[in-house]
Amino acid sequence: MNGWTTVARRTILAHSRFLTVEEHDVRLPDGRRIDGWPWVVTPDYVNVVAITGDGRALCLEVDKYACDAPSLSLPGGFIEAGETPLDAARRELREETGHSASDWTALGSYAVDGNRGAGHAHFFLATGAAPTGGAVADDLENPTCVALDRDAVAAAVREGAFRCLPWAAGAAIALAHWPAPPGGGRRSP
Amino acid sequence: MNGWTTVARRTILAHSRFLTVEEHDVRLPDGRRIDGWPWVVTPDYVNVVAITGDGRALCLEVDKYACDAPSLSLPGGFIEAGETPLDAARRELREETGHSASDWTALGSYAVDGNRGAGHAHFFLATGAAPTGGAVADDLENPTCVALDRDAVAAAVREGAFRCLPWAAGAAIALAHWPAPPGGGRRSP
Repeated sequence: MNGWTTVARRTILAHSRFLTVEEHDVRLPDGRRIDGWPWVVTPDYVNVVAITGDGRALCLEVDKYACDAPSLSLPGGFIEAGETPLDAARRELREETGHSASDWTALGSYAVDGNRGAGHAHFFLATGAAPTGGAVADDLENPTCVALDRDAVAAAVREGAFRCLPWAAGAAIALAHWPAPPGGGRRSP
Repeated sequence: MNGWTTVARRTILAHSRFLTVEEHDVRLPDGRRIDGWPWVVTPDYVNVVAITGDGRALCLEVDKYACDAPSLSLPGGFIEAGETPLDAARRELREETGHSASDWTALGSYAVDGNRGAGHAHFFLATGAAPTGGAVADDLENPTCVALDRDAVAAAVREGAFRCLPWAAGAAIALAHWPAPPGGGRRSP
């Protein structure tokens, strides 16, 4: 419960499976009503920080339409019909890096836009990642896989090298769960 | 340069200042062309992690339509016409918390959706935050201001208490820039 109520909803643009736009009539927590509130429906997606046995996170260098330069990114993608977020995360990790991982921790689910919706981002931290094959070429993003240790991921977050919001978020949230190695790490005196 | 080219663009839904939808015809890095690529235009926005002299970040507890429960959030909002991101960040901090801050660090600008655009999120870390007045009541979000120390922000990030993507991202990215106090912090042995 958040105090908001959807009184009515109607589709005003049904573009494709990637995008539908609705208008909602909503009642606010204080009882007032706002009609015609725009609401964006895009697919839920996952991103994974998968750490190998030697403590490196599998990242990708990609070209994305919305980024004006190549970006560091995380394995991930849309959740397909019938998948749980964890299913999708395992599949995307395999398809994009050829790796599987033994231990999975959910890092939360987040509304992409607090006002418009735009689906949810689901993040995971996976450890014990090892090559198992199964990579599928992606000819839209032109990805190159790179493995970064914790200090390198932290530096990339600080430098804004993850140029899209979900990748920066997933990497930075994972850092809050990923202990710096004893005696290592520039933040540990 | 990211290797993608916009060949043509047309507006297919002009809803309001909060939402326009376009279709783009795009040329991929490998020369192929995709027509009718959906592209979402929403306003750029800012979020701020503002830290007081005693080491606490000014957060808000809010009700948002897209969140199914009350959420921890960061001061922020849309960039208004004629504002730089920093202008907007200073204004939103003042309006939402009644504080101003002396030292500002830009934490990067991020495409909200790597495929659809949906504007950019701009994050800032501000220190030396102190009450100066100027708060403006927000009757849509029902905010309550709370001041959290670094450990509490890190715990909130780990627990998913920032329930919208930009707040979780802004808080987690700020942690990568905000040194743990000497001898303190649960991650420092």
